[in-house]
Amino acid sequence: MPKITDFSLHDLRFPTSKTMAGSDAMNPDGDYSAAYVELHTDDPDLSGHGYTFTIGRGNDLCLAAMDKLAPKLVGVELSEMTANLGKWWRVLAGDTQMRWVGPEKGVTHLALAGVMNAVWDMWGKSEGKPVWRLAAEMPAEQLADTVDYRHISDAITRDEAVAIIAANHQHREARIAELIARGYPAYTTSAGWLGYSDEKIRTLCRQAIADGWNAIKIKVGRDLKDDIRRCRVVREEIGPDRLMMIDANQVWEIDQAIDWVKALAGSNPYWIEEPVSPDDILGHRRIKEAIAPIKVATGEHCHNRIMFKQFLQADALDIVQFDNCRLGSVNETLAVQLMAAKFGTPVCPHAGGVGLCEVGQHVAMMDYLCVSGRMDDRMLEHAGQLQEHFVNPIRIEGGRYMVPEQPGFSTEIKLQSRKDYSYPEGSYWRGEMDSRAQA
Amino acid sequence: MPKITDFSLHDLRFPTSKTMAGSDAMNPDGDYSAAYVELHTDDPDLSGHGYTFTIGRGNDLCLAAMDKLAPKLVGVELSEMTANLGKWWRVLAGDTQMRWVGPEKGVTHLALAGVMNAVWDMWGKSEGKPVWRLAAEMPAEQLADTVDYRHISDAITRDEAVAIIAANHQHREARIAELIARGYPAYTTSAGWLGYSDEKIRTLCRQAIADGWNAIKIKVGRDLKDDIRRCRVVREEIGPDRLMMIDANQVWEIDQAIDWVKALAGSNPYWIEEPVSPDDILGHRRIKEAIAPIKVATGEHCHNRIMFKQFLQADALDIVQFDNCRLGSVNETLAVQLMAAKFGTPVCPHAGGVGLCEVGQHVAMMDYLCVSGRMDDRMLEHAGQLQEHFVNPIRIEGGRYMVPEQPGFSTEIKLQSRKDYSYPEGSYWRGEMDSRAQA
Repeated sequence: MPKITDFSLHDLRFPTSKTMAGSDAMNPDGDYSAAYVELHTDDPDLSGHGYTFTIGRGNDLCLAAMDKLAPKLVGVELSEMTANLGKWWRVLAGDTQMRWVGPEKGVTHLALAGVMNAVWDMWGKSEGKPVWRLAAEMPAEQLADTVDYRHISDAITRDEAVAIIAANHQHREARIAELIARGYPAYTTSAGWLGYSDEKIRTLCRQAIADGWNAIKIKVGRDLKDDIRRCRVVREEIGPDRLMMIDANQVWEIDQAIDWVKALAGSNPYWIEEPVSPDDILGHRRIKEAIAPIKVATGEHCHNRIMFKQFLQADALDIVQFDNCRLGSVNETLAVQLMAAKFGTPVCPHAGGVGLCEVGQHVAMMDYLCVSGRMDDRMLEHAGQLQEHFVNPIRIEGGRYMVPEQPGFSTEIKLQSRKDYSYPEGSYWRGEMDSRAQA
Repeated sequence: MPKITDFSLHDLRFPTSKTMAGSDAMNPDGDYSAAYVELHTDDPDLSGHGYTFTIGRGNDLCLAAMDKLAPKLVGVELSEMTANLGKWWRVLAGDTQMRWVGPEKGVTHLALAGVMNAVWDMWGKSEGKPVWRLAAEMPAEQLADTVDYRHISDAITRDEAVAIIAANHQHREARIAELIARGYPAYTTSAGWLGYSDEKIRTLCRQAIADGWNAIKIKVGRDLKDDIRRCRVVREEIGPDRLMMIDANQVWEIDQAIDWVKALAGSNPYWIEEPVSPDDILGHRRIKEAIAPIKVATGEHCHNRIMFKQFLQADALDIVQFDNCRLGSVNETLAVQLMAAKFGTPVCPHAGGVGLCEVGQHVAMMDYLCVSGRMDDRMLEHAGQLQEHFVNPIRIEGGRYMVPEQPGFSTEIKLQSRKDYSYPEGSYWRGEMDSRAQA
C-alpha cells in the first residue's frame, strides 16, 4: 500500500481584484488564492493535491500552518489512514500545542482543510474513483468513521450516521444514474458582483438565462438605493419565476439587516445570505423570524461543525452554506450534512473563489447519494472563473454541474498555472512588479 | 507627539512542559509562549511592548500574522490613534484580504491582541500612567471610542457605554484609594495541575492557605475516580468555607459534563470551567440549567465579543472569563465588560500562562473603576510562574493583586529573558538542542 513520503507547498494567487469579479460589501478587492499542498507517496504515480481557499493576504499564514500539520502524515500508510480517517482528522485538529491558536477555527483550521483535501484526492486516485463515488461505494461504517463526533454527539452519533448512510445505499445505483444523466442543480453568482454596473448586470443576466440558469445571486449591502435598483434590474431580466438570491457578506447590524431586506422584498429575493456576523447564531435567528418567508442562508464563514450544530438546534437558518475549505474537508462537511439531514435543513454549499466549485461538486453529490437523498430543494453555487487552471475542471450544462469522472477530488491545478501564479516568484507576479517598477 | 517608526518581533518560549505546571486534560504539555512585539517610536525613550499568549507550536504563526498587521501602524502618530482607538482597531481587524482567514478569530485575532497590547503599553507610558489609571482618568467618550461596536450594537451601543463609564467617574478617587490599599481579589490555579500527585496538591493547598488564598482551582476531566479523590483532597485541605473551582478544559460532551460535575458535587465546587467546546453556547446553557447552583464559567477560548454577546443573551454562563490576549486587547475586553455589566454577569478574567496576569490585573481593575463598580463577586486568576521575566512583575499580597504603579501595561519582558528564551536561537533552547544531540 502507498505510503506518504513527503509534501510540497505552493502559494498561488490570482489577480481577481483587477476585474472586480469577486467584489462584495465586505471583501471589495479579493485576489482569489489557494494555499496548495501536494502529498507525495512512494508510488511515483500517486500523489494527493489539496488546497484551502483565501482571498490574498493571509494565504501564506495558511501555508505556514500546513507546514506544521502535513509532517504528521509523513511516513503514514494511506490504508492506515483510510481505515479510520476521523481518528487521523483528530490527530491534525488536536495537536496539543497548536490547538491553542484555534481551536478548530481560523488559519489552522483552513490549513487542516487543505491537507485533508489532499488526503481525499489521494484516496480517490488510489481507488481509481472520483471522491463522490468513493464515498458512495464504501461501507457505511467506514464513511461514518471519517467524522470526528467530538462536541456534536448531542446532535448526531456515529450510530445514527451509519444508519443514515446505510439507508441511502439501496437507492445508490438509480441516483448515480440520475446524476450522470442530469447533473446536480446549481445557481450562478457571476452576474452580480458589487463592482459591476447596471448595464453589465443586465448583460450578464441575459447571458445567464441563455445558458440555462434559473437562479441568480447578487451582492448587496453597500447602498440601499443602489440595491433597490440593482435588484429591480435583475428581477426585470430574469422574470417572475426564476430565483434571485441576495448576499450582504456580513456588513449589517441585526435591525439594519431586517429593515434593509424588507426594503428589497418587492423584488422577491429567495434568500438573504450572511446578513450579519457569521458568528452570530442568535442574531440570524432574530432576522429569520422577522423576514420570513424570505429565507436566511449562511455558512461560508461558519468555522466548524459545533457552530453549525447550534445554528440547526436554534433554528437560526433556513439554508446551510458550508465551505469545504473552511470546515475541515469532507470529514467535517459530512458531519454537517448528517446533522442538517436530521434537522431537515437543506445544504447549498458555498463555492466560487478558486477551486471551491471543484471540491463542492463532490461534496454536494455526496449529500444526494449518502445523506439527504434529495436535490429538489438544494443547489450548489457556481461562479465561472479560474476553471481554466484545473487539470479536471468542472463541467456546467444547462445550469447544472455534470458529474466529475476522473479519479480524485478534482483539486489538481495545472503545473504551468502553479508556476505562473506562485506568489511572489511566479512569472505573472514578477511581471506585475516589473511593470510597477517601470511606472 | 511620538510617531511609530518601526517594530520588532520575538518568538519567546518557556519550557513549562518539563515540570507539568500548566498540564490539563486538553493541554497536557504546553510550553508557555509569548508572540512578542515591540513598537518603536521617533522618541528613543518611548516604545510599546505587547504580546499574545500561546502554548508553543503556533506561536510563530501569530508572529507571522503580526508581521502583516504591525506595518499598518508604522508612520502613524500615537495621538492620531488615541483620538479614536476603536477606529484603528477596526483597521487591523478588518483588513480586506486578511479578514477571510478569520474573521476575528484564531491566529490573526491573537496577533491583533498582541499588537494592540503594545499600543496600550505605549499609550500608558506616553502619559506616565499604568493602563488601569489611564483608562480611569480619560474622558468617558474617549474610552468608549476604543471599542468597535460592529456586530454587538443590539447588546450595547456607544451611547450606553459612555453613560456606564461616566456614571463610574464620581466614585473614581475613592475606588482608586481602595485598590491601592487593598488590591484586587484573586484566586490561585497553582495547586491543582493535572500532572501533580495528591501529595503535591496537599502541600500546595497548605502553602496557598498560608499565603492568604481563599479560592483555589484544580484541573479535572481525565479520570472520574481520580477527580473525585483529588477534589476531596482539596476540600479537606481548604476546609468548608474557602472556594474550590474545577476546570475541565473542554474535554467533555454535554451529558457527560452534567454527570461528571454532579459526581463531584459532594466536594462543593463553586464553578465548572470550560466543560465542553468553547464554541458551544447552547451546550453551556444546557449544562448551566442542569447543574445549578454550581456555576458555569467559560471564556479563555471564546474568540470575540460577538460570541460573548450570545453567551450573555442566551443566559448560557454564570462567569465571564475572557482572555485579554485572545480577545483583541483592552478594546475588546472592555466591550465584553460593558455587555456583562448590562446583563449583570460577573467577569473573572483568565490569567496565568506567561504574561496574562500582568495584563489581566489592569483589565480587572478597569472593570471596577470604569464599568461594573464591583469587586465583591469577582476575582482574577493567578498562576505563579514566569513572573521573574517581567520588568514590572505582578505583586500578590494576601491572595490579592496589588495595583501596578509603573507607567504602561506591565508587558515588558526583560531583555535578558528575551535573549535566553528566543526560539529556537536563544541560549536556553540552544542548550536543549546540544544536550539532546549529546544524548
